[in-house]
Amino acid sequence: MNIQTLKNRHRAVREGLSRLKADCLVVTKPASVTYLTGFTGDDSWAIVLPGAVVLVTDSRFTEQAAKDCRLCRIIERKDAMVKVVAKFLRTRREIKAPAIEKSATIADFEGLKKHLHARLRTVSQVIESARRTKDPGEVAAVREAAKIANQALRQTRRKIKPGLTENELAGILDFEIRKSGATNSFETIVAFGPNGSRPHHRPTNRKLRKNDTVLIDFGVRHNSYCCDVTRCFSVGKSGRLFNKVFAAVQEAHAAALKMVKAGVEIKQLDLAAKAVIKKHRLPVYGHGTGHGLGLEVHELPVVSSRTKGTLQAGDVITIEPGVYIPGKLGVRIEDDILVTLNGYTMLSNF
Amino acid sequence: MNIQTLKNRHRAVREGLSRLKADCLVVTKPASVTYLTGFTGDDSWAIVLPGAVVLVTDSRFTEQAAKDCRLCRIIERKDAMVKVVAKFLRTRREIKAPAIEKSATIADFEGLKKHLHARLRTVSQVIESARRTKDPGEVAAVREAAKIANQALRQTRRKIKPGLTENELAGILDFEIRKSGATNSFETIVAFGPNGSRPHHRPTNRKLRKNDTVLIDFGVRHNSYCCDVTRCFSVGKSGRLFNKVFAAVQEAHAAALKMVKAGVEIKQLDLAAKAVIKKHRLPVYGHGTGHGLGLEVHELPVVSSRTKGTLQAGDVITIEPGVYIPGKLGVRIEDDILVTLNGYTMLSNF
Repeated sequence: MNIQTLKNRHRAVREGLSRLKADCLVVTKPASVTYLTGFTGDDSWAIVLPGAVVLVTDSRFTEQAAKDCRLCRIIERKDAMVKVVAKFLRTRREIKAPAIEKSATIADFEGLKKHLHARLRTVSQVIESARRTKDPGEVAAVREAAKIANQALRQTRRKIKPGLTENELAGILDFEIRKSGATNSFETIVAFGPNGSRPHHRPTNRKLRKNDTVLIDFGVRHNSYCCDVTRCFSVGKSGRLFNKVFAAVQEAHAAALKMVKAGVEIKQLDLAAKAVIKKHRLPVYGHGTGHGLGLEVHELPVVSSRTKGTLQAGDVITIEPGVYIPGKLGVRIEDDILVTLNGYTMLSNF
Repeated sequence: MNIQTLKNRHRAVREGLSRLKADCLVVTKPASVTYLTGFTGDDSWAIVLPGAVVLVTDSRFTEQAAKDCRLCRIIERKDAMVKVVAKFLRTRREIKAPAIEKSATIADFEGLKKHLHARLRTVSQVIESARRTKDPGEVAAVREAAKIANQALRQTRRKIKPGLTENELAGILDFEIRKSGATNSFETIVAFGPNGSRPHHRPTNRKLRKNDTVLIDFGVRHNSYCCDVTRCFSVGKSGRLFNKVFAAVQEAHAAALKMVKAGVEIKQLDLAAKAVIKKHRLPVYGHGTGHGLGLEVHELPVVSSRTKGTLQAGDVITIEPGVYIPGKLGVRIEDDILVTLNGYTMLSNF
């Protein structure tokens, strides 16, 4: 990662901190640690100080941290994380108001506080808010992940034939993703026929029939960034119900997309998509219409009827309306887009 | 899951709670929710009450929850989780001392407390401690996961040949796991040659050479339970360094296993394995010698030199000493065992 990009991120986080009157932030969330340091391993924390960013890791990751991190000091811990971080902070006399993210566990908060012998503030979404606005490198990374997803799905579709199980189809798709040097951003969902009515169905050994519907919801992680897409299609002869539902979901998807541009109230996307489903007298889906994504497959903003606030240029979000009819079928169409000043750019260009 | 098993678990958790003078526990950790309810989806919380266990989920999972859960009331939430849970608790006048696990986030704790208008205790590892002692069904599930891992690795080894990349090998192994109806319990690690010196190496496009070492650290999740195993071998002619290191790691592995039985201080396993590595004048690994596993791939107890306490019958743990020589190679041997009164039972019987 480019050093200027890292410096920009550190500055954005420090500005967020200073608005909250904190001068130091302990970061425990893996994706936020990656965001601040470039480090892609696990079990490591970052500390944002006025003049530096520190990564606290252990011997399993020291070699990798040295490769990954270009702008931070690396501490290899030999004791419990909270003890090492507290000890380090105690030596830095210039720190007056340390804080920890509210995404940390209660145990980490209490442990750190105990060893720190000082007040420890909790702050909300300082880094999540900075992460929400994607820089061009991040947008390119999501697009690249979506491109790999596209190719993997194309290869996989050639191999789809009746008799294949949901597990086998998921396995073929995951293998195509692996071959390209990427990994899954979450566990692949493959649902045939009525199994599609459970939005988070796990693949089973149900076999594909001659005339059947297929729902695939999957994501690729490439260079730490995620995409998240859902495709539905029928094999053999597609039934009237599938055709009707698919057309309605497509229309809902288009209605949400049409609303997208910076400044629009986020909940309007959800309302627009659901109004189309309602118009077709189909059951309105209970999940939101989308979510931010980037280093994690779920980030800010949430796109639901309860979301407050407006879309911002630089948001990268999914749009994913669906229709679920238990015992019959499920259809969902999900794409990833970049919000721009005047509209959007499609990133999952299938 | 058997109803009696669920009842036993609920009783164990209620006993743990009453020792802490709490009468209700809010559970946010997915694996602990599964443990208490049988529910295998995401984004759901459980509430342990004096007379019942409640699952709070959303519309994406309602159909699945009805299938999964045999002994709990299901609430489908339509508002934020903390609001719905707080509202439910406010209606239960008999609850005097509600608590939340310390593995919850600070945000969830603060959110719940705010809407609860009452004191909210934090308690540590009530469910983790109950989960530590595996019942026979759980032991069988880990063994079954290890059996699938064994078969998948055997199929994969037949396909190993020079020119294959780490990514491709990981993909072949993951596909074999998928075909059997299981999934990965964590992202498969495949490391060739010197890449093995990073214990948490991520597969790359490095190709397997004619005489090369292979390290594979992988796990299978089957019926919610995990195994976690590491195998190392050489293709072609194995070098003298590999043979020497492999023999030392085998000896360390055996030395740790020899210590295992209920009542033994856990740290003794770590010390025994590391003493062997030291004796061979090889670099002593910085990670612990093992960890508990079950519904999660890392559970209690941690097997390290800092662990306090003794092994208990019913612990299921890994034993995984290693040697890492940067620029040269890495060797780790990892098995999963059940601790018994007189010794151990090998679960990953490769």
